[in-house]
Amino acid sequence: MIKTDILIIGAGPTGLFAVFEAGLLKMKCHLIDALPQPGGQCSEIYPKKPIYDIPGFPEVMAGELVDNLMEQITPFEPGFTLGERAENIEKQKDGSFIVTTNKGTKHQAPVVVIAGGLGSFEPRKPPIKGIQKYEEKGISYFIKDPEIYRDKKVVIAGGGDSALDWSIFLADVTKEVSLVHRRKDFRGALDSVEKVEELSKLGKINLITDAEVVDLKGKEKLESVLIRHKDEARGEELKTTDYFIPLFGLSPKLGPIANWGLEIEKNAIKVDNSYDYQTNIPGIYAIGDVNTYKGKLKLILCGFHEAAIMCQSAYQRINPDKKYVMKYTTVSGVNGFDGSKKEAKREVIKSIN
Amino acid sequence: MIKTDILIIGAGPTGLFAVFEAGLLKMKCHLIDALPQPGGQCSEIYPKKPIYDIPGFPEVMAGELVDNLMEQITPFEPGFTLGERAENIEKQKDGSFIVTTNKGTKHQAPVVVIAGGLGSFEPRKPPIKGIQKYEEKGISYFIKDPEIYRDKKVVIAGGGDSALDWSIFLADVTKEVSLVHRRKDFRGALDSVEKVEELSKLGKINLITDAEVVDLKGKEKLESVLIRHKDEARGEELKTTDYFIPLFGLSPKLGPIANWGLEIEKNAIKVDNSYDYQTNIPGIYAIGDVNTYKGKLKLILCGFHEAAIMCQSAYQRINPDKKYVMKYTTVSGVNGFDGSKKEAKREVIKSIN
Repeated sequence: MIKTDILIIGAGPTGLFAVFEAGLLKMKCHLIDALPQPGGQCSEIYPKKPIYDIPGFPEVMAGELVDNLMEQITPFEPGFTLGERAENIEKQKDGSFIVTTNKGTKHQAPVVVIAGGLGSFEPRKPPIKGIQKYEEKGISYFIKDPEIYRDKKVVIAGGGDSALDWSIFLADVTKEVSLVHRRKDFRGALDSVEKVEELSKLGKINLITDAEVVDLKGKEKLESVLIRHKDEARGEELKTTDYFIPLFGLSPKLGPIANWGLEIEKNAIKVDNSYDYQTNIPGIYAIGDVNTYKGKLKLILCGFHEAAIMCQSAYQRINPDKKYVMKYTTVSGVNGFDGSKKEAKREVIKSIN
Repeated sequence: MIKTDILIIGAGPTGLFAVFEAGLLKMKCHLIDALPQPGGQCSEIYPKKPIYDIPGFPEVMAGELVDNLMEQITPFEPGFTLGERAENIEKQKDGSFIVTTNKGTKHQAPVVVIAGGLGSFEPRKPPIKGIQKYEEKGISYFIKDPEIYRDKKVVIAGGGDSALDWSIFLADVTKEVSLVHRRKDFRGALDSVEKVEELSKLGKINLITDAEVVDLKGKEKLESVLIRHKDEARGEELKTTDYFIPLFGLSPKLGPIANWGLEIEKNAIKVDNSYDYQTNIPGIYAIGDVNTYKGKLKLILCGFHEAAIMCQSAYQRINPDKKYVMKYTTVSGVNGFDGSKKEAKREVIKSIN
């Protein structure tokens, strides 16, 4: 059992900064994240993209912001459970919570903070009737191991970077790869679009544009897909295939947290923004993009504020008898749990005469 | 008459960042500040002090933070009225406000945002009866031009850096300089304390510790001060002087804004934190350290959040018929009013086949 003061679900920028604010109040944090590294979307989806609206940074790469935050919280020695998804929560008699991940890791804390961003990212599935029937039986939404497609017939659908890049990669692996896209316009790196064009001319990618997969056939497993052309004269064609791989991007889902009894509105967790960003369950807070309230802005800078305010309330919950007097870091410095001390050069008090 | 969309009173970090958030929504800002430069306390009081709790900055000098914010808002071309204090506000028939400074400069805007920090900084005056009578007649709370003290007799009071440094400086200018401090302990840079000690031994500073100025004498102007020693055996002494300069630091005051009809609590302006940080007067908002609400934290990072939220509400007030859809800077970039454009490298959309 991992025990901590504040258990934070989600290690994106908001969750990370909460460690800092908690540390100033001498509370220890542990973070759980389904991704294999901290930083949330910033690290996973757009580490090299610039962000322009972080106060004090005219421009900062998302990955650089995460690196900075990791450095900022180092003195407060956060714990991490990475690559695991928070699944269950159980309230204990003493008022604390036990959160268990999909891999069975258990965490106990008097305060749980959900900083889950937009949620776990799950593949967008095309609206084809009965598609579930073929999942794991010829349909994949991710390509984990390209080797399983060696010398097979594969149909990829999509018009973005993933669809383009995997079509290029699989052109040398599969017996036949088809790329189906409902438009002629592809949205991807120029290199990738031109490479697909070239491989199509060489007959190494079977490029089918202005068309979409509308039906799936097969008994035990997928055997063919029905492709409908926009051009009515071309009509429909049944294409024999071993695998169909729709790559339509990722869509955020709240995931198992949706079943924790929290008040949910539009796939986000309702909180009390007039005070402390606490949910309808006392002791569980939600900060950052995962929460909602009147006037909510899904900005990283708002998550930072919510983290700071939440920590004051968490402090009162954990230390009901103490009164915390806020100190400014400029005046009092930062005392790390690791014994480190950051502080401004002090004025000297000296007695003369 | 200076006209703008949002008139911001106070050019500290919160006021400056509000310009950025307003700019993203295509609203122009103008700032008024009593100080001669932007940055508020960060520039005026502790530019060289490190701040540790700005998210994404493990350490940043206050002055550097201000420089960064100034760079971040440059594309939105803010206007500044500096070295003037907002004195009066008048609501116009069209719902807009006219704000006039102590120097008579007039500004008109549909939205007024008070980002006044802890207020205007005013000198702390010693509690000596009738001290007002001698103001400008031998008593100064600031040293603007040291030349006026040349070959005069001067008494300085205080135990901090200002009192120490000005005593040292004036030792070479005045006929006689006395430094009166009610303790033996001085709080200042070690250099300064030692220099005063040295000059005292050389007889160039008349150092009087464990004593305080308790009365002022003089007909038309100040002629002498009465110094009372802690040591009762030494009693009181009347000291002939041309000037008395108490340097007891600065104290923040809300100033004339306190008379604008806003709901005030503990020297701060009450706002609606459950929505948009608006005051009791529609169209007037208060953000940053100058406001108060349940759970308020006087942190710069909270002011940033309040600025962002306020701008959404101000946008609705200024554009009642438009609906603003928030765009992420990472996705849509930043379009400066000066024609500048910052944006992430775009994906390419290319048509093939």
